[in-house]
Amino acid sequence: MPFTERSEVTRSAILLAARRCFASAGYAGTTIRGVAAQAGIDPSMVMRYYGSKAGLFSAAIDVDLGLPDIHAEPPGRIGAVLARHFVERWEGEAADGVLVLLLRSAVTSPEAAERMREVFAKQVTPVVVAVAGDGPETAERTMLVATQVLGVALCRHVLRLPPVAMMDSSRLVELMAPVLQHYLTGPLGSPVTSADAAPVPSVISPPG
Amino acid sequence: MPFTERSEVTRSAILLAARRCFASAGYAGTTIRGVAAQAGIDPSMVMRYYGSKAGLFSAAIDVDLGLPDIHAEPPGRIGAVLARHFVERWEGEAADGVLVLLLRSAVTSPEAAERMREVFAKQVTPVVVAVAGDGPETAERTMLVATQVLGVALCRHVLRLPPVAMMDSSRLVELMAPVLQHYLTGPLGSPVTSADAAPVPSVISPPG
Repeated sequence: MPFTERSEVTRSAILLAARRCFASAGYAGTTIRGVAAQAGIDPSMVMRYYGSKAGLFSAAIDVDLGLPDIHAEPPGRIGAVLARHFVERWEGEAADGVLVLLLRSAVTSPEAAERMREVFAKQVTPVVVAVAGDGPETAERTMLVATQVLGVALCRHVLRLPPVAMMDSSRLVELMAPVLQHYLTGPLGSPVTSADAAPVPSVISPPG
Repeated sequence: MPFTERSEVTRSAILLAARRCFASAGYAGTTIRGVAAQAGIDPSMVMRYYGSKAGLFSAAIDVDLGLPDIHAEPPGRIGAVLARHFVERWEGEAADGVLVLLLRSAVTSPEAAERMREVFAKQVTPVVVAVAGDGPETAERTMLVATQVLGVALCRHVLRLPPVAMMDSSRLVELMAPVLQHYLTGPLGSPVTSADAAPVPSVISPPG
């Protein structure tokens, strides 16, 4: 394969190994050498691509939520689309553990907390603007979505609180959808209405 | 003052100091000696009351949510009552940092995560049962309340995501209330309705 493509494969392997190491051993317990061993490459390659453990950590928590283009969706279904997307991002085929790693890290690392802020501000705000227009409530709506999405992730993947932790993913989507819809398009601070919400589509696959 | 009362005062001083130490230095960075110094007492007293650092930690994360008796409240206002109570518990006069400590600890300590599960299961379940009756959805409703309450606490007090982090506490209560109400009494998994929700009372004091 061409050089740049091979370089991309190596970077991906390093990041995957780094996420596993940081997730299991924490920042302090992770070494460049350990990451390199897990990726099956020479430590000097890790240093060449990421410069230092701090640089590697920064790259490892660089989360792309991969939010879908919601312009074609009916506004009343965006809550369900977003709920399904987040659940799949945490635990479906697209899951890479990076969101859980970022969540765990953000509790103790100011850098990771700042990254979390950026991830939601940059990636979720356009969804809010697309569905609810840009206005004085845009930032509130975005971060209310964050409170519910991160609260579910915390209880399901970190604290493992039953029954949220063992719930079928389709049920979880069903339960989150109306609340995300409310935060996106509802009258904030008023009793939630069903004015512009539609039933949740049952298109999510069961958990693996 | 009588012996038992003096003993109670000493225990409280030790727990307050322990919560501060665990919160700022983490479990590994906290010592019995440090806690005793902060409480202004002899380390042997800490050992006498709590036996070990593990025993002290266990006592320090023993959270009493102090949930109000909601039997006299109209069912449609319990979401608002609960939202106001949690916000005051985290940051009002009753705040002692123990919930934030438990939240931070639970991310890395299985014992603290288990305690978090117990706190919500034992203390929030009776509220759910009182307002919605006991049924197959009781555990789901309880833990959905946990996802939203802990998600807000995480974003506001740990990650400090703006604007949730700097929002007026009365606004925060106003925003959380309809969602808690939905999780308590709403038709789960269906678009949220305002059928049994009432407007949020504006009786919370501004943040200090």
